[in-house]
Parts: sequence; structure tokens; C-alpha cells
Amino acid sequence: MPNTELQTAPEADNEDYALSKKLVAGVLYALEAQDRHTLIELTEPLHPADIADLLEQISPLDRRRLVQLYGEEFDGDILSELDDGLREEVMAVLKPDVLAEAVRDLESDDIVDIVEDLDEPAQEAILETLEDADRVAVEQALSYPENTAGRLMQRETVCAPEHWTVGEASDYLRSAEELPEQFYHVILVDPRMKPVGNVTLGKLMSSHRDLPLTKVVEELFQVIPATQDEEDVAYAFNQYHLISAPVVDEDERLVGVITIDDAMVVLDEEHEEDILRMAGVSDEASLSDTILDAAKGRATWLFVNLLTAILASGVINLFADTVDQMVALAVLMPIVASMGGNAGTQTMTVTVRALATKDLTAQNAWRVIRREVSVGALNGALFGLIMAGVAGVWFGVPMLALVIAVAMFLTQIAAALGGILIPMTLERMNVDPALASGPFVTTVTDVVGFFLFLGLSAHMLL
Amino acid sequence: MPNTELQTAPEADNEDYALSKKLVAGVLYALEAQDRHTLIELTEPLHPADIADLLEQISPLDRRRLVQLYGEEFDGDILSELDDGLREEVMAVLKPDVLAEAVRDLESDDIVDIVEDLDEPAQEAILETLEDADRVAVEQALSYPENTAGRLMQRETVCAPEHWTVGEASDYLRSAEELPEQFYHVILVDPRMKPVGNVTLGKLMSSHRDLPLTKVVEELFQVIPATQDEEDVAYAFNQYHLISAPVVDEDERLVGVITIDDAMVVLDEEHEEDILRMAGVSDEASLSDTILDAAKGRATWLFVNLLTAILASGVINLFADTVDQMVALAVLMPIVASMGGNAGTQTMTVTVRALATKDLTAQNAWRVIRREVSVGALNGALFGLIMAGVAGVWFGVPMLALVIAVAMFLTQIAAALGGILIPMTLERMNVDPALASGPFVTTVTDVVGFFLFLGLSAHMLL
Repeated sequence: MPNTELQTAPEADNEDYALSKKLVAGVLYALEAQDRHTLIELTEPLHPADIADLLEQISPLDRRRLVQLYGEEFDGDILSELDDGLREEVMAVLKPDVLAEAVRDLESDDIVDIVEDLDEPAQEAILETLEDADRVAVEQALSYPENTAGRLMQRETVCAPEHWTVGEASDYLRSAEELPEQFYHVILVDPRMKPVGNVTLGKLMSSHRDLPLTKVVEELFQVIPATQDEEDVAYAFNQYHLISAPVVDEDERLVGVITIDDAMVVLDEEHEEDILRMAGVSDEASLSDTILDAAKGRATWLFVNLLTAILASGVINLFADTVDQMVALAVLMPIVASMGGNAGTQTMTVTVRALATKDLTAQNAWRVIRREVSVGALNGALFGLIMAGVAGVWFGVPMLALVIAVAMFLTQIAAALGGILIPMTLERMNVDPALASGPFVTTVTDVVGFFLFLGLSAHMLL
Repeated sequence: MPNTELQTAPEADNEDYALSKKLVAGVLYALEAQDRHTLIELTEPLHPADIADLLEQISPLDRRRLVQLYGEEFDGDILSELDDGLREEVMAVLKPDVLAEAVRDLESDDIVDIVEDLDEPAQEAILETLEDADRVAVEQALSYPENTAGRLMQRETVCAPEHWTVGEASDYLRSAEELPEQFYHVILVDPRMKPVGNVTLGKLMSSHRDLPLTKVVEELFQVIPATQDEEDVAYAFNQYHLISAPVVDEDERLVGVITIDDAMVVLDEEHEEDILRMAGVSDEASLSDTILDAAKGRATWLFVNLLTAILASGVINLFADTVDQMVALAVLMPIVASMGGNAGTQTMTVTVRALATKDLTAQNAWRVIRREVSVGALNGALFGLIMAGVAGVWFGVPMLALVIAVAMFLTQIAAALGGILIPMTLERMNVDPALASGPFVTTVTDVVGFFLFLGLSAHMLL
């Protein structure tokens, strides 16, 4: 489709792409005044992703006002760009006919992304408003398991028989009635529709018309099974610098294509999930969650942490008599536990990352474990010595200095072991190792730290 | 260049792209036997990124052996794919002529990536072996500050005058002597070389020859200043689903182009940096670091943590008499601190992510702070009540139950404030908020937790 309008850089008062203060203030003013004309004028130059950000940043009340004032101007792409949590909220405010119209304009993979999280009746309501071809495409995508290549791919592909020449392929493209909005390769297929190679459009445009396509295929060619986990898809794109890759069904027949921009979105989401999970936050948390939702999303892990903290307190309670006889132990014991918790978190984070990037495998596991334990021993020795000095000067009891040094040394080693073995075990059990978050590793370090420090004190000091 | 060899999916015994156990074992065997033929046969089908992973997974000794046995087979792309830390180690083992040959084959942006971390003499040595055009390109890229678009871009662009037609642009591409390996748009430029629009190759191939290029430009067009931080570049690609974007100098003249695959690598690295920094690990840490390097990279933060832990212990010491009179306080106080630390880490993580995705801005800061404090108050009330029950049953002192409930409630609120205000303040000061890692936030929660719990105990219990 010819298009003469140039959309320019987003409104921003700096170079870093954040929405400008002036713009947001103007929009809020327009909402207050119910001034539809100004609202549309202000948001017209914005990319749908920026309008989605705007919706995420304003209050729930202003959000509702904006969607209502927007009316039929509401663009389907804004829905695609919204956080999952907010999307349902916004869709509930949209009038049914505006919603239907907004969704109808989207590409099938974006529609899948929007409807897959809805409940059955809401999903049905949207599917019914689609044109037949789109509805079939969306339904077929939904037949693949969640978070797989089949859900991620676009079904519209550009392919050519493997025996064609550059000229034949070029003529085909020029005469094709409808081509996908974005595509980067012509996929060569054999007579059974099995993809056998990719030709870039640049190669196609610059090569001689008589050359067979098989002479200009890309060196690297990666085919993705439709049932592959989207996390692995993103990994493949990142690892092999893919731009687009054909997706095949179990009979190796071409069923769709995934492009790098979709893979980049998945990579970003997977990172977000990891980072939130490691901190013990529900991985769908977003700033626009209500207070109650946010509190719930964090309470689960706080509850797990409470149980493990009580367990650690139980260890202290075992040595209540010891602590009662020497209050310096109560003063110093949090240092042993805190240093252990920190070292454990460091090792755990490195391990979770290494598992995600497939740098930690069965082949090098033992070497990495040995390395982590050695690192723990080195830092344990260093900080044990420092703390021996501090405790010696502070409380003037040489034996206490020795006890804290030994306890810290051993706790750092335990922290290293916990930090690497817990995520590795979870990975083996097919549980996301990022769930080896705070609570698990710090339980190990707290329990070991308190037990060693107070246990050694009970035997050596009193 | 015509190419008839099809490189197939990497050797893997599963679908998830990890290197197969068999392959690694075979390579190690070949290294042991100094069997060059087998080594090359085994690694031939691998993508350079996989060979780099292989080098990262084996021991330093095997690594040296592999590079030496490889000899002149060593491919420059392997260097590009290696971790920064390992790259220097490998380059030190390569013979100077093999290194020169390996680097010479790379695209200029990849050469920049390799030489930018080297010291002056090593950098000079490599630059001298390059062809003139490449050397100038690399030197010009190095003249831009580190981590900017100017370093990231390729200098080879495909552009056309804005008044050309589709046919003229097509003919130009067909007759061009040399085109970049990968390109996705023809960039329209005005007579002063200012980029004014992008035309996709797909549009070029499928549009009528007589159409002016300006009629088929992309709706969204984003120009990137050469001095822009690469983190913002990655953000723009992710936010606006860009595939490639022209880079301009301060006079708005076209100087290069950035493609999405490079932006994806930056996005991945920025995430890695954030996640490691938040855990207090040096952000260049990798599994192939030596034990000493790894220990050093973590000792800095452990040392900061030691200081803050001693500070927290100092707070306990203020109340040593109180603890001495009631040992239950020593048993329970870590629970208050641990729950605070966990809640603070949750809020901090959500805040750091929201700052990175530009969802937390000056406009909504107050609302978000109020929200976090409310979440802290809700969970503080919930877990305060639970702990009151636990402490009441455990120690049978009703007043102790009341004290721990109040202390936990207030500590959770302090944790929320610390978790959001510390990263926001760092961001204001232009320090990476991910550095608001464990130590800072948990110091606040430890100090506040111990102070409140023991202080309230001193006044209300004894």
C-alpha cells in the first residue's frame, strides 16, 4: 500500500524516547476537559507503543476516560502493545463494535497474542467478528500449545519452488496480489513443502535473473519446529543472528515464519520473567497492577520466606542458652548469615544466567561447581580473617574471633554450593531455575550460618 | 557471492540448541590425541557462535590446545562471538598472521567490537594489518564514544536520492558492485545526505517501476544520532519494532545503519548487566573467568555488604542489654530483618525494571511510590498478624506478639520506601539503578528492622 505520510520521531523532550512531561500533561488536561479534538491531535504523532505506555502511566480513572474519549479512533495496535494485565481492563471499557474493528485490522499473530489470554466466551466473541481467513488462521495458531513457535509465527509466508531461478522468483513477487507487511527471505521449498533454503531479498535483487535460486541461498539456514518452546526460538535467533526462520509441522512441512522482531520481544519478556522470579515477584507484575494485585503477587514469596525465616530462627532457638550466656553472639550472628546470603545470591545469579544462555551444561558442570566452591573458599578466607579482626577488637575475646572466622569460611562455601546446586537441580527437574530465588538459597545460608556460628560458639566458647 | 553449501542445524542431541555431549567428548578426545583432522571434521558443521560456546565450556588448557591445533582454520567470526574476557585470552594464543587473517575477513562493525577493548599497542597491531578502507572505517567508528550508536553501526549503507522511482532504485541495486551482506531497506536521502525515509526491499520488489520511492516509504521512520547510548538504541528497536535504522552525525547526515540483530545483542547484554549488578556481581563476570578473577569480581560487593552488616550489628549492640534480658528477641529479630530484606528486594527489582523500560517517569512517580507503600502496608499488616500469632504461641508473651507485629508492619513500609527511592535517586544521579543492589536496600531494611524490633521491645517489654 502506498503511503505518503511520514511518521516522525516520537514526542520527547530528550533523546531517550521517554514520553515528554508536556505531552502527558496536555493529554491529562484534555481528558479533564473532555476535549476529544485536542486528545487526538496530541496522540496522533505517537507510535501505538507509546500510546500504550501512556495508558500504563496514567491512573485507572484517566485510563478509562481516555479510552472512552478516544472512541472509534482506538487502534488495534495499541492493544497489542499493552501489558497483558492492562489489556483486559482496556478491552472491558471499549465498546464491542470498536473492539471488533480494532482487532480486525491486526495481523493474525497479533490477534493470537491478544485473544490467547481471554476466557472462552470473550475469545469466541472476538473470533466471530473476524473474517473467515483470519479466524481460521487464529484458531489454527491457538491449536498449538502456549508459548511455542506455533503461537508466535505468522502464517503468511513467501515461498518458491527450489528449482526456480532468480528471475522467476522476482516476477512472482512483482505479480503477487498480496504480500506480508514485512518479509526478509523467500523460502525455497521442495515439492512436499519442506523448506530447504532461504534467499534474502537483497540477493534476489542484485543477482542475475538466470541464476538458480539454490545458487544464492544463505549459508546458515535454521528450521524451527512449530512445537518448539518460544524461549528456545529466541535463543536460536540471538545465537545464530537469524532474521527470519521458517516454521514446520511434525511432517517437516512449512506452516509459517518467525521474524526477529517477534523473537526480540520474547527475549525481552524471558529476561523480565527471570529477573522478577529471582526477586520473588510474580512474573506478570507490572506498575499498573492494582495495590491488591501487587500485594498478592508478592505475598506468596514473602510467605515462603516467612517459613524459611522461622526455620532459621528455630536454629537460633536451639542455641538459646548459648546466646543467653554471651550476648555478643546475638550481635554478630546476622553478619555471618548476611554475608552467606549475599554470596549465595551472587553464585545463584551467575548460575541462572549460565543455564539460560546454555553456557552451563552437563559437560562442564563439575568444573564450574569446583570453581564456585574455590571462589567461596577464597572469599570466605578473606572475609573470615577481616571479621576475626573486627570481632577481636570489638569484644576482646580471641576465641570469638576464631569462631566467627571459621563459621564465615564454611558458610561462604555452603553458600557457593547452595547457589549453584539449587538452580541446577531445579533445571534437572524441568522447573525454571530462576525460581531458585531469594528464599531457597538464603534459607540454606541462614540455617548453615546460624548453626555453624552458634554451634561452634557453644562448643568452643562456653 | 553464490554459495552452494547449506549449513544445517547445529549438532545437538536435543531440540534446545545446547552442544551435544557426544560432540564435546569427541572434540576433547581429538585434542588429547592432537588429531587435527578429526577436530576440524567435528567442528566444521558448527556455527561460529557454537564454536565460541565450546571454547567457553572447556578448560583453559583445552582451550589453548584447541586454538593451537586449529591453526589457520581459525575463523574471525569465532572471535566476534566469544565473551570479552575470553577473547583476549584466545587472541594471545593465536599466531599473529592467523589473527590478522581472521580479523581481516570480518565486517567493520565486528572488527570495532573486537579491537575496542584492546590496549593501544595491540589495537595498533591489528589495525595495521587491515586494508585501508577497513582501517579508516574502524578508526572512524572508534572516534565515537564507547557504547554509542556510532560504535554499533555498520558504515556500509544502501541509499538512494529521494526523487528516484522504484525502477531506478531496482536497476541501481542490480548493477551495484558490492552490497552489504545483510540489508533490509533502501534509505532515501535528500541532496545533503539527510535520511528522509526507508523503503523495504519487499515493497521495492512488488511495486510498479514508475512509482516514486516517496510513495512506498515505510510509515514509521526512526533516525538514530551517532552519539546515542546503545541502551537507548536497543530500546527504540524493541519499542518501535524497527528492523534497521539510519544513523546520522550532528549535521543530520547519514553515516551508517544499525540493524535489529545488533540491537538484539545489546538488549541481551544490557539485561545481563542489570541482573548481575542487582546481585552484586561484577557485570563482566562469566563462567570462564579464572577463580581469582571471579573471587575479585564478587569481593567488592561482599565488602560493601560486610560494612553494612556491621552497621546493622551496631544497631543490635545498642540494645545488647535488652537482648540479654530476653533471649527470645535474638531468636525472632532475624525474621523481622529477613522479611524486610525480601520485600525491599521485590520493590527494588520492580523499580529497576520499570526504570529500564521507561514505565516509571517523573509523571507517575508519586502514584507509584504511594502504591508501593500501600502494598508494603498491606503485606506488613498481613505478615505482622501472622508473626504475632507465631510469636505468641511460641514464647507465650502477648506483649512480644504485639511488638513483633508493629515492628514487621513498619519495616515492610520502610522496605517499600527504600526499594523504590534508592533506585530512583541513583537514576536521578545518572548512576545505573541496578547498582541499588542487595547491600543498599537490605542495609535499610536490616537497620530499620533491628532498630524497631529491639527499640520497641526495650520500651514495651522490659
